[in-house]
Amino acid sequence: MQGILSGEEVTVARVEAESFELRGYGRKEGKGAKEEREGKLTLSLEEAAFLLEAGKIVIKREEEKESALTLEELFKHALGIFPNFGARYITYKDLKERGYAVHPGGVDFWLYPRGTKPGEKPARYFIRILSEREFLPVKDLEELLILAHNMRKEPIIAVVDDESDITYYKVKEAKFDAIETRDEKEWGRREERGEGNPFLLGDKVVLRNAAFAEALYKNHFYGTLTNEGWLLLSLVEAAYLIKRGLLEMSFEQFIEYATSIESDFLAKYAVYADLMEKGLIVKTGFKFGSHFRVYKAMNLKHSSDLIHVLPAEHVFSMSELARAVRLAHGVKKRMIFVYQSLTKNLNKAVARQHLGTVDQPIRYVDIGRMKL
Amino acid sequence: MQGILSGEEVTVARVEAESFELRGYGRKEGKGAKEEREGKLTLSLEEAAFLLEAGKIVIKREEEKESALTLEELFKHALGIFPNFGARYITYKDLKERGYAVHPGGVDFWLYPRGTKPGEKPARYFIRILSEREFLPVKDLEELLILAHNMRKEPIIAVVDDESDITYYKVKEAKFDAIETRDEKEWGRREERGEGNPFLLGDKVVLRNAAFAEALYKNHFYGTLTNEGWLLLSLVEAAYLIKRGLLEMSFEQFIEYATSIESDFLAKYAVYADLMEKGLIVKTGFKFGSHFRVYKAMNLKHSSDLIHVLPAEHVFSMSELARAVRLAHGVKKRMIFVYQSLTKNLNKAVARQHLGTVDQPIRYVDIGRMKL
Repeated sequence: MQGILSGEEVTVARVEAESFELRGYGRKEGKGAKEEREGKLTLSLEEAAFLLEAGKIVIKREEEKESALTLEELFKHALGIFPNFGARYITYKDLKERGYAVHPGGVDFWLYPRGTKPGEKPARYFIRILSEREFLPVKDLEELLILAHNMRKEPIIAVVDDESDITYYKVKEAKFDAIETRDEKEWGRREERGEGNPFLLGDKVVLRNAAFAEALYKNHFYGTLTNEGWLLLSLVEAAYLIKRGLLEMSFEQFIEYATSIESDFLAKYAVYADLMEKGLIVKTGFKFGSHFRVYKAMNLKHSSDLIHVLPAEHVFSMSELARAVRLAHGVKKRMIFVYQSLTKNLNKAVARQHLGTVDQPIRYVDIGRMKL
Repeated sequence: MQGILSGEEVTVARVEAESFELRGYGRKEGKGAKEEREGKLTLSLEEAAFLLEAGKIVIKREEEKESALTLEELFKHALGIFPNFGARYITYKDLKERGYAVHPGGVDFWLYPRGTKPGEKPARYFIRILSEREFLPVKDLEELLILAHNMRKEPIIAVVDDESDITYYKVKEAKFDAIETRDEKEWGRREERGEGNPFLLGDKVVLRNAAFAEALYKNHFYGTLTNEGWLLLSLVEAAYLIKRGLLEMSFEQFIEYATSIESDFLAKYAVYADLMEKGLIVKTGFKFGSHFRVYKAMNLKHSSDLIHVLPAEHVFSMSELARAVRLAHGVKKRMIFVYQSLTKNLNKAVARQHLGTVDQPIRYVDIGRMKL
């Protein structure tokens, strides 16, 4: 078998393209192709290297004129075109050896259901390949999701580590089960609640009316109740109660105060409020290294999700991703990253939204380890 | 009981200072004090608030002249002096309620062995208090360790989260058991090894001499051996082997190449080489979200430590710390952060060190959760 290397492809002549050993490799040039290419088989550089390593093909730069390329020479050529060819090839090989049909192309490979061959069925996933030392900006993550949505595929991130092991991460929009949302009426009128004057204690708001404090804590899981019957509310909890008219403070002034303590307060608040509106119970996720942990009303013993809020300009390191996802996995929770969609200035947009003028969507992205 | 508030202290008159209810609180003014203070008891604001909340003291700004302060008024006064008084007070209360003797002062509190009172025995720990939204630059961490060393105390970081729960972290210099280091002689002469020509494959170095590859892999745990008998080395592994004269490449040229792929390569390499010199086995820690995992020669089944290399200018968020330490704890490993001590420009210093001119110490800091 002989292939001719040119740029990012290796072409096998028509006469050999049908051979048994090439089944599952490459892309056949159909009748729409230029006449001289019709019936030929085009291999990607990963496919060509894989076949070369297995001794199933001989590759030359120009037909007959020079000696066959060594694998090292092919790698050098490929690295000139794809600087991450090392990671691409290791991933290609791993998937082939596990019995997957995989075809280089798209972002960065197409992956087909196990046992099928490219062309038989549409690809189900596409794979973005990174090495453990690489970075992924949030905007690239969003582009990946948009692309996946438009193409009706599921995106996978494959990370090749320094031991050439590959960890596969499945990326998807997080869905939350619909839950009946909170009923305002049960709270009663302000005079009945008699909430007293809450006061500020650094990054806490203290509520001293024992009956109201206890109702908020026991029935609605807000804050922490001290031995003295005081309720210590976090900044997001207090802001949410103020916004709903349940604590008597100026929302604008409180936001200003909270932002002076925590510069990205508004981004966190927008996500907190959005999750609360979905009927979830939201508490700090600090012990798990995330902003929030989330409970569903039917399971108050174990939180189901960790939620981490990212600025739109955030750039993931792969080790950060690995650490967060592994931790969440270890405690049987989903790891959900949140960002304000398509917005450069997150805080400003959130401010407009929650002070009531803009409606910029919040994106929840569930990243979990995938066993292939 | 009556105390007079002034600045950051509340003073109790001599006649009341001996009372049973004040045992374990405050600092008695000894004979060296100014005459008018002699025998008086000075309470910190945390102690005063704690006694006020328990109803054991009345606090005024000036003796007799005005009405007693409410707890809210005392908090407001204290927040004006310590913006993090909320976190300080919650921590103070938590420790008192757990039966610890604790005395505000130093950085930020002194903590005494349980059951003792301040003054009876020297403090064993000092506690730095932060809230979950705060940050800790690496240089502050180093100052904490230097202070601890000079004062012969152990430092604790207490993080108050949004639920007013406190997580205590013990910070110490990581010690590594002395292990016999590698013996150069067993490697044999270059001609005997016949290592062939290693070649670059992106962020891997490929070694194709099957016998040498197998010896490096099986006896010395370098790299990953492929089915074809090729050894895939990571950049740090290759650099270390080159430096030791076991791979025939120019060290300077290789460092330049590796740095073009990973800008902070030299910092990682310096730590890798240092750990290898200690006789440890060092592999990637990617799956745990860290740079390295470390095995001791006597236990090759389970790695004992996760090692993460930080630039000297790194600033920890508390959630980053919580995530890393929790993950390490979950897999029964130590979480060790590493940085180049007292050096602004890490890479330059490391370069000089490993090209053989400077000897800047590398600091290993073990941060673990502490149950109080």
